[in-house]
Amino acid sequence: MRNVKEDMLLANNHISVDCVVIGFDGERLKALLIKRVGEEEGEVFHDMKLPGSLIYRDEDLDEAASRVLAELTGLKNVHLMQFKAFGSKNRTKDPKDVHWLERAMKLKVESIVTIAYLALVKIDRALNRDLNDCQACWVALSDIKALAFDHNLIIREAIAYIRQYAEFNPSVLFDLLPRKFTAAQLRALYELVYGRQFDVRNFHKKISMMEYVVPLEEKQQGVAHRAARYYRFDKKIYNKIRR
Amino acid sequence: MRNVKEDMLLANNHISVDCVVIGFDGERLKALLIKRVGEEEGEVFHDMKLPGSLIYRDEDLDEAASRVLAELTGLKNVHLMQFKAFGSKNRTKDPKDVHWLERAMKLKVESIVTIAYLALVKIDRALNRDLNDCQACWVALSDIKALAFDHNLIIREAIAYIRQYAEFNPSVLFDLLPRKFTAAQLRALYELVYGRQFDVRNFHKKISMMEYVVPLEEKQQGVAHRAARYYRFDKKIYNKIRR
Repeated sequence: MRNVKEDMLLANNHISVDCVVIGFDGERLKALLIKRVGEEEGEVFHDMKLPGSLIYRDEDLDEAASRVLAELTGLKNVHLMQFKAFGSKNRTKDPKDVHWLERAMKLKVESIVTIAYLALVKIDRALNRDLNDCQACWVALSDIKALAFDHNLIIREAIAYIRQYAEFNPSVLFDLLPRKFTAAQLRALYELVYGRQFDVRNFHKKISMMEYVVPLEEKQQGVAHRAARYYRFDKKIYNKIRR
Repeated sequence: MRNVKEDMLLANNHISVDCVVIGFDGERLKALLIKRVGEEEGEVFHDMKLPGSLIYRDEDLDEAASRVLAELTGLKNVHLMQFKAFGSKNRTKDPKDVHWLERAMKLKVESIVTIAYLALVKIDRALNRDLNDCQACWVALSDIKALAFDHNLIIREAIAYIRQYAEFNPSVLFDLLPRKFTAAQLRALYELVYGRQFDVRNFHKKISMMEYVVPLEEKQQGVAHRAARYYRFDKKIYNKIRR
């Protein structure tokens, strides 16, 4: 503290939380985004952003993340974990973002430190029912265009974080899958997370090594191709092995 | 953004960085702390805190962490990684902390979001030479008393983070060890990080399974007990196995 230079301004920032909710629909990884409408130099623009907002004074970070996600998307009871703070001065370098925010919040905004949270969910009817009344929608990662602020960077870092996390705790990947899933779905998920192809036969061997991925008697129904077997993730076996 | 209640005050916080530098001296895990002198209700008090400080406007978080650590402890070229943001309103619930900070910074302080960084180092003469002119000192984790703000909590979470990180990337533990180390030192480190005892014989087996822990021809010299063999960590072998 002794070394603080009195002629330098200390950071006094607004704090926001941004939620990266990643879902899997059996084929693609998607992020939950909300629509943004703004006006810049007399032109109306439409684009997208992560569900996020400035937080209130006296609000804890974790509380704020849950509140903001529920308010902006309708999603509740989603397990959010903090994964990184973003505080570069470049976050607010685009005047379009600053003007939009100042209009929305009715206050002068300089820089914002955002605390990013991550959640992994399965995209299904139950989840999407909660989304109905909101402006939120699922966008496949490969289809995401330029987002507000540094939100593209935040999503990239979230995916890198998932990859690293899954390395020592593969159970998180099963949060993305339906209760019963096919080997093809599990392989598609691995390919998306790790950004590389897995050989079909080798992947079947890999599955048979995962004692916690249990084959069911049940098979797909009403499919044009040969019906595939379903599997389920067994949390009890997983925890037993890992202990 | 639509849902911000106009009658609620938005957080507008000072931002700080706090650096948890964890070192190992061959026997104990220690944290680098700095001394704090303050006055509360007419009484002078002495205690300790993590090296940390408010950051300047226009300063990136990573830059700020390196600057603050160097200014307060003398340590440079230490690899700091961001591990968690702490923003609970309870962080500044102790008036002693707030008054101390307001006096040091000559400004009104309400709440502070701190971004915590972590570094793992080996405590040796070269490192301690840089510390000389500072108020910084190494305190064994088990000897740490009540620290300023929520710094005890931040250190606890840092240790939990190391344990989790080492699970999938054990190479980080070797950042804590000297270039050559004995099996007993490695075992002591594992016991400290994992908070449990390892059987000596089983641990020797464990070492022999780690291809990247290479036995040297060299043994300890001038020790009263039977001289132990030295080992070294081979980064090349480690990277090859992990790829």
